[in-house]
Amino acid sequence: MRPLELNTVALSPDRTAVEILDQTLLPREVKILRLDDLKDIWEAIRALRVRGAPAIGVCAGYAMALAAARCGAESADELLAALHETGLYLASARPTAVNLTWAVGRMERTARNNRELGVTELRERLFAEADAIRAEDIAISRSIGEIGVGLLRPGCGILTHCNAGTLATAKYGTATAPVYLALERGMTGLRLYCDETRPLLQGARLTALEMCAAGVETTLLCDNAASSLMAAGKVDIVLVGCDRVARNGDAANKIGTSGVAILARHYGIPFYVCAPSSTIDMTLASGAEIPIEQRAGEEVTEMWYRERMAPEGVGVYNPAFDVTDHTLITGIITERGLCAAPYEKAFRALGIGEEGT
Amino acid sequence: MRPLELNTVALSPDRTAVEILDQTLLPREVKILRLDDLKDIWEAIRALRVRGAPAIGVCAGYAMALAAARCGAESADELLAALHETGLYLASARPTAVNLTWAVGRMERTARNNRELGVTELRERLFAEADAIRAEDIAISRSIGEIGVGLLRPGCGILTHCNAGTLATAKYGTATAPVYLALERGMTGLRLYCDETRPLLQGARLTALEMCAAGVETTLLCDNAASSLMAAGKVDIVLVGCDRVARNGDAANKIGTSGVAILARHYGIPFYVCAPSSTIDMTLASGAEIPIEQRAGEEVTEMWYRERMAPEGVGVYNPAFDVTDHTLITGIITERGLCAAPYEKAFRALGIGEEGT
Repeated sequence: MRPLELNTVALSPDRTAVEILDQTLLPREVKILRLDDLKDIWEAIRALRVRGAPAIGVCAGYAMALAAARCGAESADELLAALHETGLYLASARPTAVNLTWAVGRMERTARNNRELGVTELRERLFAEADAIRAEDIAISRSIGEIGVGLLRPGCGILTHCNAGTLATAKYGTATAPVYLALERGMTGLRLYCDETRPLLQGARLTALEMCAAGVETTLLCDNAASSLMAAGKVDIVLVGCDRVARNGDAANKIGTSGVAILARHYGIPFYVCAPSSTIDMTLASGAEIPIEQRAGEEVTEMWYRERMAPEGVGVYNPAFDVTDHTLITGIITERGLCAAPYEKAFRALGIGEEGT
Repeated sequence: MRPLELNTVALSPDRTAVEILDQTLLPREVKILRLDDLKDIWEAIRALRVRGAPAIGVCAGYAMALAAARCGAESADELLAALHETGLYLASARPTAVNLTWAVGRMERTARNNRELGVTELRERLFAEADAIRAEDIAISRSIGEIGVGLLRPGCGILTHCNAGTLATAKYGTATAPVYLALERGMTGLRLYCDETRPLLQGARLTALEMCAAGVETTLLCDNAASSLMAAGKVDIVLVGCDRVARNGDAANKIGTSGVAILARHYGIPFYVCAPSSTIDMTLASGAEIPIEQRAGEEVTEMWYRERMAPEGVGVYNPAFDVTDHTLITGIITERGLCAAPYEKAFRALGIGEEGT
């Protein structure tokens, strides 16, 4: 299948635009958007044309490099000021994914630490840094896969929620990385179950597409069927991604994840969160401090449908994320190693939180 | 709002057809279907144009009376044979709802017990029996409401799943009956939360419509947002209907109900099943014996949407119901009283299972 041979996010060859695969059109249409205006990049993040915490980070990195290339600054100080403003603007697109602010911060820090290069060199340095974010994202996903594949067995049933796949990253995904690694190693009989993930249907549109394309036996289910599937003994392990993890291990991820974790606990099924270390926010004591984006009710009542499916005037509760309590998480798979409770200690043992931010 | 002043299921005034409100068209279009062909009635049950265990029972009662009126039988024996055949056919439309077979059985028993009347009188007797099923359904729903309203408090938040409302019965509903009674009694500030209930969206299309029309503060949420809503402290009680209850209290209801029950247990929220005694099947030892209808994958991948939302070739897991374990149920509200565990003893104390079947 074609879409997955394309890049989720890339810099255009002439370095004047970010090119993204418009994920709102999948699985029907494969369209690459060329975004050379910062406003369009902001809109693409906001509207989930590019989505998934790591992919958003890569996109933000390139957006910052483009802004630097274009801002007309004639000194490093002016460039830094322009970057700061761009960063604030980009970060306002989606509040929950820490990778967005993480990538913005990394680009600003790179500029600050290299200001002596002068504006021309500095602009080159920022393109290189954005490329590095992308390359690191691929390496991180692969490392998560290498650790996670050790939890899989031939023939096992894997449930995932939302899309933490290649489409959410630069390659491999996070929650799907162990599956891609298992395939590389010839493990047979894997059964992948995707929650459809209302209201944006990332499971139905994206994860199912990716996994079918990869040749995995893939079964789609409505979010509310996960309990039935688990009761039927079909699920051996749950693997999910995450958007932000607090230092106690509480993990914000796509709405519905905490429910899946509670079900997994009830049915005695191990529940793992796949988290690049950049999603672990050591400044937050618990998940209660993670800001949760509330999205428009129309996503629930109208989006994708031929006609509105709910009465006019009804209220809508549509948070984009929920927080899974750390006590429900069997382990957090980072690219540096597999963490078990107590999570703060495990994160610190891997050096997470020691970089400047 | 108009639709709720209409009958969910009724006999046409000239007694030649069943008239049903086509629930697949709500909330957009209010259309009464006049069904004078048994095949069309079967299709209407199968396609969920008429749905909800009690309403299906009422519909089946009238279908049996119509079949008797038309079958051309010239003796009671011939009429009984025709009814038996009609009953088997109707029951094949949906396997899980015990009310369907219960209503069919009741109509056949009525014919058998009154065979001495002769065919002409017997046909009249069957119309009267079908009317009685409908009248009893209204009385039963009201009794469930009167018991259930005692569990509500001004300002409380009520979560429900699917539609166990007026549209699922002849009037009042089961899970919604306590809400209607609370409104009648002037209780203020109730907050009603409806899971949208994929894939057929009975919560979004039907429960939200009913509750908004009744003047209740109504909020719609995706099924996967229930955990977040409970974590936010918004839900004080869960009320759901059911399609069949085994004698140990295991309850089959719309897919997703068991998940809601597990979440409610996790968050310490009481979870009640509203069950007319006709849905309690004392012949089944546990929920493992309840047949679960598997429905077409297109309901998940295509139905309602402008275009298919999942890749071609993906498998789909689409059971219509799941079974909530009795240990997760705080109480089962029947029209005869509120039952708590151990359920078999409680059911027997109310005389449930003592009628001939």
